[in-house]
Amino acid sequence: MIELGQNRYGKSAIRVVKIARRAGGHRVRDLTVAVALEGAFDAAHVEGDNAAVIATDTMKNTVYAFAAERLDGAIEAFGRALAEHFIAAPQVDRATVTIREHRWSRIPLEDRPAPDAFMRDPSFTRLAVVTAGGGVTTEAGIEDLVVMKTAKSAFAGFPRDPYTTLPETSDRIMATQLSARWRYGTADLEYDTVFDAVRRTLLDAFSSHESASVQHSAWIIGRAIVEAHPDVEEVGLSLPNLHHWLVDLSPFGLANDGEIFVATREPHGLIEATVRRGDAVPR
Amino acid sequence: MIELGQNRYGKSAIRVVKIARRAGGHRVRDLTVAVALEGAFDAAHVEGDNAAVIATDTMKNTVYAFAAERLDGAIEAFGRALAEHFIAAPQVDRATVTIREHRWSRIPLEDRPAPDAFMRDPSFTRLAVVTAGGGVTTEAGIEDLVVMKTAKSAFAGFPRDPYTTLPETSDRIMATQLSARWRYGTADLEYDTVFDAVRRTLLDAFSSHESASVQHSAWIIGRAIVEAHPDVEEVGLSLPNLHHWLVDLSPFGLANDGEIFVATREPHGLIEATVRRGDAVPR
Amino acid sequence: MIELGQNRYGKSAIRVVKIARRAGGHRVRDLTVAVALEGAFDAAHVEGDNAAVIATDTMKNTVYAFAAERLDGAIEAFGRALAEHFIAAPQVDRATVTIREHRWSRIPLEDRPAPDAFMRDPSFTRLAVVTAGGGVTTEAGIEDLVVMKTAKSAFAGFPRDPYTTLPETSDRIMATQLSARWRYGTADLEYDTVFDAVRRTLLDAFSSHESASVQHSAWIIGRAIVEAHPDVEEVGLSLPNLHHWLVDLSPFGLANDGEIFVATREPHGLIEATVRRGDAVPR
Amino acid sequence: MIELGQNRYGKSAIRVVKIARRAGGHRVRDLTVAVALEGAFDAAHVEGDNAAVIATDTMKNTVYAFAAERLDGAIEAFGRALAEHFIAAPQVDRATVTIREHRWSRIPLEDRPAPDAFMRDPSFTRLAVVTAGGGVTTEAGIEDLVVMKTAKSAFAGFPRDPYTTLPETSDRIMATQLSARWRYGTADLEYDTVFDAVRRTLLDAFSSHESASVQHSAWIIGRAIVEAHPDVEEVGLSLPNLHHWLVDLSPFGLANDGEIFVATREPHGLIEATVRRGDAVPR
Repeated sequence: MIELGQNRYGKSAIRVVKIARRAGGHRVRDLTVAVALEGAFDAAHVEGDNAAVIATDTMKNTVYAFAAERLDGAIEAFGRALAEHFIAAPQVDRATVTIREHRWSRIPLEDRPAPDAFMRDPSFTRLAVVTAGGGVTTEAGIEDLVVMKTAKSAFAGFPRDPYTTLPETSDRIMATQLSARWRYGTADLEYDTVFDAVRRTLLDAFSSHESASVQHSAWIIGRAIVEAHPDVEEVGLSLPNLHHWLVDLSPFGLANDGEIFVATREPHGLIEATVRRGDAVPR
Repeated sequence: MIELGQNRYGKSAIRVVKIARRAGGHRVRDLTVAVALEGAFDAAHVEGDNAAVIATDTMKNTVYAFAAERLDGAIEAFGRALAEHFIAAPQVDRATVTIREHRWSRIPLEDRPAPDAFMRDPSFTRLAVVTAGGGVTTEAGIEDLVVMKTAKSAFAGFPRDPYTTLPETSDRIMATQLSARWRYGTADLEYDTVFDAVRRTLLDAFSSHESASVQHSAWIIGRAIVEAHPDVEEVGLSLPNLHHWLVDLSPFGLANDGEIFVATREPHGLIEATVRRGDAVPR
Repeated sequence: MIELGQNRYGKSAIRVVKIARRAGGHRVRDLTVAVALEGAFDAAHVEGDNAAVIATDTMKNTVYAFAAERLDGAIEAFGRALAEHFIAAPQVDRATVTIREHRWSRIPLEDRPAPDAFMRDPSFTRLAVVTAGGGVTTEAGIEDLVVMKTAKSAFAGFPRDPYTTLPETSDRIMATQLSARWRYGTADLEYDTVFDAVRRTLLDAFSSHESASVQHSAWIIGRAIVEAHPDVEEVGLSLPNLHHWLVDLSPFGLANDGEIFVATREPHGLIEATVRRGDAVPR
Repeated sequence: MIELGQNRYGKSAIRVVKIARRAGGHRVRDLTVAVALEGAFDAAHVEGDNAAVIATDTMKNTVYAFAAERLDGAIEAFGRALAEHFIAAPQVDRATVTIREHRWSRIPLEDRPAPDAFMRDPSFTRLAVVTAGGGVTTEAGIEDLVVMKTAKSAFAGFPRDPYTTLPETSDRIMATQLSARWRYGTADLEYDTVFDAVRRTLLDAFSSHESASVQHSAWIIGRAIVEAHPDVEEVGLSLPNLHHWLVDLSPFGLANDGEIFVATREPHGLIEATVRRGDAVPR
């Protein structure tokens, strides 16, 4: 017998921009939204019966309409409004709304920010993931934050087997394109405020710690976030290790005392870790 | 109390090319390999103790050396050799080796293929994922296969709510960048032969079926694969719906009877489904 | 005094798909079109007067409408129809239409190709660039053709200065993502036939020659094309040298006799050369 | 007769990072460098004689070594040092060095910036292009600056032909990924200072002007730069028009008074213009 297993469907890459035309200066909200539904969609698959299949085009329209009416605060709240709308359909068991916010800031002029001219600030993307169905789960995150430590990063004491050639180092460059995603244990937070505070903690921990490895860094950053923010139950970190290799300048009669590096993308280490409150109910 | 949760680490994007210099003509094997380990790495995170941390650089070296000595058949077998190597370290509970093979074919000359000149054949990427730890799991897959149906694709009978504007259609274009990944229930297969057969089934099913929706297509394709290949326990399909919208040519006095479309990438539908034997042990 | 210099404008990335629903089997034409105009647009720039500015949205519409009525043969002919349309506006001195064709082939079933199911064949992109204004110039090209020689490629005899560390080699891998673009001296060719023949010459020359350097290869390939195709006046080649470095396996007690390579993308050589008939009028 | 036409070669995508370990705090310089040479390379092409061919690997090494010894100021000066090095070889007629600088800033901590922890600031890339051979030409530029005007942008008064459907608008969003590249008429400038001033002028002009079209904006921005900076002879601007389309919310009973837009990437307008001093010698 052959049967349908896990399945879900939805619309991805819904690009919506909202311009709030306020007197003191406009505000740009620039989102990429994805909606995914799980539920009683067996007949759609097995029988080709679409009676339960909310069209993904309808999801897109819903995002546009909700952007007009409901997008006036944090993306976590907007995501919740969308998730609760979709979970209300009886055939839907679980609705996941993923929102990435692309940041724009008003261009600074000599005396004040421009009221209606903006620059993209791509230094990171803010993420919210809201899941409805048997309660609501709210996660927030930060993606594509590229950071580097030029000191306080070592990697030594690792095992040596016949395939090991890497020398130990007490001082290397550590560079990563950091992604973090954390789950809130509390509902109805001041999400913008908390997000800024978590980001602040993350950057402080990244900057100040002595790293024995990327794994060690992941723990220290994750622990700092959970420790400092009681609303955060758990944080997952993904840290590619974007290697910077010291260039051998000796053929040219030059020393290279930790100064000249070649930046590489392939291959890269990939370190992923979750840090959580010990009393958190595992998901 | 704060604790370490799920974690894993490894090396990604290891690019290795092997040239088999055979008398009748060379063969190019072009792989991108990723290794990920889980296990007793708490001390690395929490204490900065690297005694158990096999360096990701060592993983890279191991892939190179194993490519020299062990890469003479299917990527599934190569992946298994690597996974079993890494699981042999006592601190490792689970080793996952992911291999993508980029295909090259000998350039056809007038009378025969060139012995030592090749073209990339990027029409799809072949995937193998081997996991060792409490037994070995072998998955195979196909990625980035871009296919299109210009007939036999409908989408009608879906619910209409206040946000629904999509008209029903009995004839649309269905285009997708298909990814499929299946798990073998049998060990030591002729992996290359089975892969080709599964790909063949997939393309046949895609080509011949009448689609009521992308969900319906996912089921039909998945069922065909499980039905035809007793070694396949389960197959997961990911089908982005790359919409092709009929262009309104009426302002220019022209009809458009299913002829001129604009191809779009954003937003796109995303349909994911798993099809499995009913008697398969759930993973 | 400040003045307007060179300027041009247009619409890029116009994605249009045409389905020819023929009895024996459909045909998919999948194009990305760009239109660029030069001419009397000073007032638009300097005075903000749009009286002469054909909207880029109008260009897009024109491409859609022409696809319905005029796209039934080679992209060179379609490009010419568009270029001649735009040059007819009195303010336009020069119209450049660039078309990239993405290839789809009917999926092969057991006994015949599917009539209405297609696979993308991304092994290369076909290019046409038609320029109207003081006559019509037609160029054709091939892009993103990834090819590799596993023999008959050397690089030796190059000068050594204090910054030179590269050893000479009589046998290396040469891999490149080849782009070629050639200009026709003749009008109204059977463009599809000529394109196929040029591509054939290119692949033959690439496969068979002994390469002393990528520069040498560029010349040999270019010369072969101009020699074999009297309609081609000139061909430009762009050959990034995608280095494959021999891996040092000696730390693992293994030889590496031209077998195991690491494929890299950064940095890469970049070799560009034009080959032309000596009696061609320089452009 | 068949002959070699225009040709050049070099190394691209040379990634080099320099860490200046200064007492008060480190500084990260992160560059992507390309070198291209033109000259007496006919024998390399036609005869496969590499006696004149400076290996691109040597170019890479030279960049690394010069980064150690000569990279202590602006990228324009570093580019000049490299270009003058390569032009000194007798077979080289022209050496072009293109440098992109990726910006990193020290992570702000509570009371001061971190001394040794950095964030990528990807809001733009700084460009320098130095050409040596018959004198030295120095160009600077800014790339990938994504900006948006939410007011003061119109597009009306354009011609209407049978393919025109775009309505006129007195108020639209104008968004672009701006690239600008300007040529200095003066040597030995304080390049960092001038760059910052030009960028400032560019952003001011972008923010404050009333735009009748993207062409109009290009002129206004270019003119402002040439006007304000006597060292700038000429500036070229490339402005893709990343359309933001007003969403029709009327099917959902909602008004959309310039508030909700869908951001698109394909197709896009592309406007390119050069603005120069009238007394500049044309290049």
